[in-house]
Amino acid sequence: MKNRTLISELQNHISESVEIGASITVRRDQGKLVFFDLRDRSGMVQGVVLPKSGAFETAKVVRQQYVVSIAGIVNKRPEENVQTGKQNGDIELQIEGIEVLSKAQPLPFDLDAELNLETHLDHLPLTLRTEHSRDIFTMQTSILEAYRASLQRQGFREFIAPALVGGDAEGGAAAFKVEYFKEATAFLATSPQFYKQIMVGPFERAFTIAKIFRAEKSATTRHLSEATCMDFEMGFIENEREPMAVLEQVIRDTVNAVAKRHADIFARFNVEVPLVPAEIPILTLAEAHEVLGVPSEPDMEPEHERNIAEWAKKEKQSDFVFITRYPTEKRAFYTYEDPSEAPFSRGFDLLFRGLEINSGAQRIHDYDMLVTRMKERHLDPEKFVFYLEAFKYGMPPHGGSSTGLERFTARMLQIPNVKEATVFPRDMTRIDTRLSEAPEFDTDNV
Amino acid sequence: MKNRTLISELQNHISESVEIGASITVRRDQGKLVFFDLRDRSGMVQGVVLPKSGAFETAKVVRQQYVVSIAGIVNKRPEENVQTGKQNGDIELQIEGIEVLSKAQPLPFDLDAELNLETHLDHLPLTLRTEHSRDIFTMQTSILEAYRASLQRQGFREFIAPALVGGDAEGGAAAFKVEYFKEATAFLATSPQFYKQIMVGPFERAFTIAKIFRAEKSATTRHLSEATCMDFEMGFIENEREPMAVLEQVIRDTVNAVAKRHADIFARFNVEVPLVPAEIPILTLAEAHEVLGVPSEPDMEPEHERNIAEWAKKEKQSDFVFITRYPTEKRAFYTYEDPSEAPFSRGFDLLFRGLEINSGAQRIHDYDMLVTRMKERHLDPEKFVFYLEAFKYGMPPHGGSSTGLERFTARMLQIPNVKEATVFPRDMTRIDTRLSEAPEFDTDNV
Repeated sequence: MKNRTLISELQNHISESVEIGASITVRRDQGKLVFFDLRDRSGMVQGVVLPKSGAFETAKVVRQQYVVSIAGIVNKRPEENVQTGKQNGDIELQIEGIEVLSKAQPLPFDLDAELNLETHLDHLPLTLRTEHSRDIFTMQTSILEAYRASLQRQGFREFIAPALVGGDAEGGAAAFKVEYFKEATAFLATSPQFYKQIMVGPFERAFTIAKIFRAEKSATTRHLSEATCMDFEMGFIENEREPMAVLEQVIRDTVNAVAKRHADIFARFNVEVPLVPAEIPILTLAEAHEVLGVPSEPDMEPEHERNIAEWAKKEKQSDFVFITRYPTEKRAFYTYEDPSEAPFSRGFDLLFRGLEINSGAQRIHDYDMLVTRMKERHLDPEKFVFYLEAFKYGMPPHGGSSTGLERFTARMLQIPNVKEATVFPRDMTRIDTRLSEAPEFDTDNV
Repeated sequence: MKNRTLISELQNHISESVEIGASITVRRDQGKLVFFDLRDRSGMVQGVVLPKSGAFETAKVVRQQYVVSIAGIVNKRPEENVQTGKQNGDIELQIEGIEVLSKAQPLPFDLDAELNLETHLDHLPLTLRTEHSRDIFTMQTSILEAYRASLQRQGFREFIAPALVGGDAEGGAAAFKVEYFKEATAFLATSPQFYKQIMVGPFERAFTIAKIFRAEKSATTRHLSEATCMDFEMGFIENEREPMAVLEQVIRDTVNAVAKRHADIFARFNVEVPLVPAEIPILTLAEAHEVLGVPSEPDMEPEHERNIAEWAKKEKQSDFVFITRYPTEKRAFYTYEDPSEAPFSRGFDLLFRGLEINSGAQRIHDYDMLVTRMKERHLDPEKFVFYLEAFKYGMPPHGGSSTGLERFTARMLQIPNVKEATVFPRDMTRIDTRLSEAPEFDTDNV
């Protein structure tokens, strides 16, 4: 649009004629006056059409979600009508002309109502336009930017990890099969793990924002078929404490960035900015069970994750807590175990408000040890020949971690279901629209 | 590593004892003296082991690609031994101790030799460590960062586009099939097109760095099965010139950023920084054919793309050239055609050094027009119900474009094959390792 003024700039044009491009989010017809809430990418403003206005007839027929070009005059509101704390609460656009750029059919439901999740997901092209959705994905964009920026500052270089792989990277998680060329079957990556380890060779500190795909038959509030992970890996470490320190810095930087930028979103969600103390508490798995007064187990139950989070918040003023020293047998095959620390590994998880959002570890860097471990787990080293080549030719001791973007976003805003923190979520029953064959699935009780 | 000094910081420790962590990239055994080229993420330094050094025995057995922790003293070189123009060319590390962190087997070939592409690809975990490969992917990382930063400055917000889709987004390109849950078949996205258009609703200006997948049976220097696209879409445009202007700014910002940051890489590749004049030339397809003195055709032949690039460089001092006004029937179904301009569309391509690296357009924003166009192309609107919902409820006139990251990187450094500009390339014959069933394929003569 030529001569367009963004809504955020209207304050600089008091008493002037302007042209804006906007969507109509609300239309209030009071008979003699028609009011509109108008939105563009920069914000909101209220517009009013007076009876004598040349736009009056059009104002009577346009509806919610119409896209319009509007000519008008920016008026200061009289003192008594100023809405404080609201963007442009002290001005009003007196509308002189409306050009309809795009019509909208009557909406299938009230967009302002609290929609159930399935209705929300059925109509994403429309429901993503609500302030609630825009807030969630504005927050997600900022998390992504801040996370990346922190890693860059810490000397990490981004690379592009592949999504198509020749085998199942983790040797465990269920992978989707892809019909590749001719006879070959490919898989969708369940993790960029092998590739980020390989990239420690050229870059020493590498990170990737990658898609991962899980064909697990679980329909919980925490699972997606397709998710985004923020993965880093670093060389020349002594133990897992160094990747934990890098991650702690990333978390601190990210929380500080979104706290500064999005006080308004935290307020609208009625959620507090996460607490990150000077040192995020670190508990071994055994210590965590002891704190909770429950018998020692080889892993954390979801319920215990929530309880330990409550403990960390109350006792350590922290919304984050690290759990370390899981039994090696419970971790991925490439997890490093120091002989002096057996049978515990150098893996760690990071819980955020009671949900695991990150998992990491020091990895095995010795070729022979890695092959031995594969055989112990009944994995065929022949199938890992590409990955193993990195270890044949010298790899520094290294480690890293992986954060789930959608889970991080969900916990940041206390959103109960991770699907709501995914722009276009895929699960067992849905790819945009619902799959016609609704499959059976297992739910957990979480 | 505790007490580690990065190689880039050695200059601040002249005559001091330091500890570094590094890979051995070169070992020169001169009998009484052993020299090493040592690399970490920050750079290179030469080390020397004297016969009296406690490290002498270890120095005799370590080899190329061993990963070591080294204790030594930073010495100024005598004037006559200074290597000017080389990082740390004025210092040398006198090695007192070597601890082997990771051994390396003898290399399968000379890493410094010019490898043929297949050997390079067969051994990526090793060959990605060469300076040549690190240069390419350092450049790629910078392109990615600069491209993203420019879009952010221009008011675009990043979102995560899905890779699993329910149908073939472009309604044309060959898509890989995925065995989804139970009876359903999913596809891998051939473009994030629909999703970025939908995101114009909530964000008005949206971008995504997304994976795209093409099951095309072509084995050219320009094709990949999996590629990375940098896509943006913007609302409230008059015509295709506005996305072209945004793209031109992105290109200018990106070229300026890499020119400033990577003069050394351009020098090592013996490639000039791309020319971006005050205005990137714009030719209609008809004008391009006229300039070349060839008959008018509905599309650009690869040979003509190269010739028009030569013309633009010579006549307009530009390594970039826009081609516009392709026949509508040659463009995707959602491409906007203004009645006054029929049968030409508002699509455009951007050529960089003779290769199309970007394609864009104004899109159809009217629901009825879009449905009509679908039917003309024998596409079933029922299958696009999710996408169409965005248009049912008001969409501003909009447009955008898509740049191939690997192609952009390849042309930036004049790399002949796009596979070399892809960290882990996938094609008809390879996913990391070569597929055992080498399929038949078509090659083009380019």
